[in-house]
Amino acid sequence: MLMSTKVKLMIKIHDHERLDDIQRAGYKIIQDPTKFCFGIDAVLLAHFISGFKSNFKVLDIGTGTGIIPLLLYAIHGHGTFLGIDIQSDMVEMARRTMELNNLTTNIIDIQCQDIKDFAQNFSPESFNIITCNPPYIKYNAGLQNDAVAKTISRHEVACTLEDIIQASYFILKDKGQLFFIHRANRLVDILSLMRKHKIEPKQIRLVYPKINKEPTMVLVRGSKNSGQELRVDPPLIVYNEDNSYTDEICTLYKK
Amino acid sequence: MLMSTKVKLMIKIHDHERLDDIQRAGYKIIQDPTKFCFGIDAVLLAHFISGFKSNFKVLDIGTGTGIIPLLLYAIHGHGTFLGIDIQSDMVEMARRTMELNNLTTNIIDIQCQDIKDFAQNFSPESFNIITCNPPYIKYNAGLQNDAVAKTISRHEVACTLEDIIQASYFILKDKGQLFFIHRANRLVDILSLMRKHKIEPKQIRLVYPKINKEPTMVLVRGSKNSGQELRVDPPLIVYNEDNSYTDEICTLYKK
Repeated sequence: MLMSTKVKLMIKIHDHERLDDIQRAGYKIIQDPTKFCFGIDAVLLAHFISGFKSNFKVLDIGTGTGIIPLLLYAIHGHGTFLGIDIQSDMVEMARRTMELNNLTTNIIDIQCQDIKDFAQNFSPESFNIITCNPPYIKYNAGLQNDAVAKTISRHEVACTLEDIIQASYFILKDKGQLFFIHRANRLVDILSLMRKHKIEPKQIRLVYPKINKEPTMVLVRGSKNSGQELRVDPPLIVYNEDNSYTDEICTLYKK
Repeated sequence: MLMSTKVKLMIKIHDHERLDDIQRAGYKIIQDPTKFCFGIDAVLLAHFISGFKSNFKVLDIGTGTGIIPLLLYAIHGHGTFLGIDIQSDMVEMARRTMELNNLTTNIIDIQCQDIKDFAQNFSPESFNIITCNPPYIKYNAGLQNDAVAKTISRHEVACTLEDIIQASYFILKDKGQLFFIHRANRLVDILSLMRKHKIEPKQIRLVYPKINKEPTMVLVRGSKNSGQELRVDPPLIVYNEDNSYTDEICTLYKK
């Protein structure tokens, strides 16, 4: 409690922001409810990543609040992370989150960058894993005003799925892996663009809100220059009939 | 009973064959258990086809016993069908099935053809619907001897997924639809080849043996020259925990 107060004195939390517990390893995250708060998709994506070795370098594209690197470090306790985002205010906020958790920049670094400038900003074959939780999935759900709408447009224009895949091919080591979560109805684009740019889709998992509903999201793992062999996972079902979380989802939040 | 006996006297059923009830509209099917008997995939595919108009012309590629045209006609009571297969013995057997059911060739015709010869055998834009239940899915499961293995190779070499999609583009009318069931682990090939050849994937449904198992099959609907908009259906789950059929599967068999 004292520690928490001390940290708060050192790291500025603005009035429009709030400090949330990520429910893992005691880490906290600064979020701005008027902009974007992490949701279940971030949690699903973080837990979808397996075989995560201690010497791995991870790039998170469109990191926003920094939730994906933070969750991954909280789950595994190792790895080095770079989160990039095109929005400078989000970058500034995510940096404060990492400071607040005493995670130095040699563990989780956050930079303001446009992924389309990958050739200038990155060395080829320099990362083991790339993660991406495209922000417009959630912005759409909470569309409320013109400012938000503008942000969406900027995002969809500024960074398409193909941009992410092309950049990933350049940045990933051979057989390095791209993990992301996306809308299920984009599956044709996702799989064809990945194959086109030689990030072969190796694993997908469809996320169904309920057992009798159409899936809203899909978790995807691709591997650079790998052979053609797809694994389709069992269905990931979020809610029971009575709107309570399924056992699998509860497990993710309780660990 | 008398009718059945009379039909049996007229239509030859060989000793190695058997006569099965398709449990729809009283139709029977001749099958050779040493070669191939229709399974749940044929039933799922037939029921996946919606919006089936009375003037529709349907081509079934690799028709085998003729089960798909037979089920479709049994379900809808209309349409005209051509089933083609490269194996002359299957064609001869399927023809006997149609005769036995008094389905004349202007309702269900069966021809021995190689789909790769589509440009010689078909007029462009001449069918509304193409169906395909690639036979090697089931051959693989029952792989028992060299003869069967040879048949598989012949089939995979003789008719690839890309052959079927290319032929479909030629044969289908504009916005005509291709329906098929395939292995779920071929999803990347399926979706990228369809888009490549302008049969845009419009609907897929994954078939999971059980709620906690990886899907084995995927039902696919594509539409020639149509816009990019995929619908992913709710999961189709075959068995309950206790290995009984789920309610949805029971419904298909009981209709």
